[in-house]
Amino acid sequence: MTEVLSDAARDAVLGPLFASGWNMVEGRDAIKKTFEFANFIEAFGWMTQAAIWAEKWNHHPEWSNVYKTVDVVLSTHDVGGLSALDAKLARKMDVLAGQG
Amino acid sequence: MTEVLSDAARDAVLGPLFASGWNMVEGRDAIKKTFEFANFIEAFGWMTQAAIWAEKWNHHPEWSNVYKTVDVVLSTHDVGGLSALDAKLARKMDVLAGQG
Repeated sequence: MTEVLSDAARDAVLGPLFASGWNMVEGRDAIKKTFEFANFIEAFGWMTQAAIWAEKWNHHPEWSNVYKTVDVVLSTHDVGGLSALDAKLARKMDVLAGQG
Repeated sequence: MTEVLSDAARDAVLGPLFASGWNMVEGRDAIKKTFEFANFIEAFGWMTQAAIWAEKWNHHPEWSNVYKTVDVVLSTHDVGGLSALDAKLARKMDVLAGQG
């Protein structure tokens, strides 16, 4: 069952994500990152790959796209904060963007 | 060449879009609409179709997605406001969503 990350797990799980450009969202137990690509095809192509993983894992991002930029916010609504699923999807997004 | 919609063209072009759920963005010469789908697959599938049209026409939306909801803003950066391209993409998005 999905649970909010424990205090102990946070350092281990979030540390590497902060190192790769993720940050906490102010006022929410959520993480965010801005991905920049070469152009719209690269940006939306990356979104498409991430979307299929998100659906496969039944864990979906909040994200917005303007041309070659994609802003992502991850949190787990069911538990009201960050869970291991957010870290898993964040890592996958990094890998898909060549930043993993 | 793309130009800002003239006052005369606005009524003819924007009227039907307002009737199908588009609205002006406050403080910008831009239009917005929220599209709701049955689930994430439908929402992102629609985005994918719209993305390919956007790239084909070299005219891209500002949009955000949370699960089955997609918020779209259209404006033409090159001309600093609404152009015929925005109306064309808005109509295509409506048709792709079965709202055309």
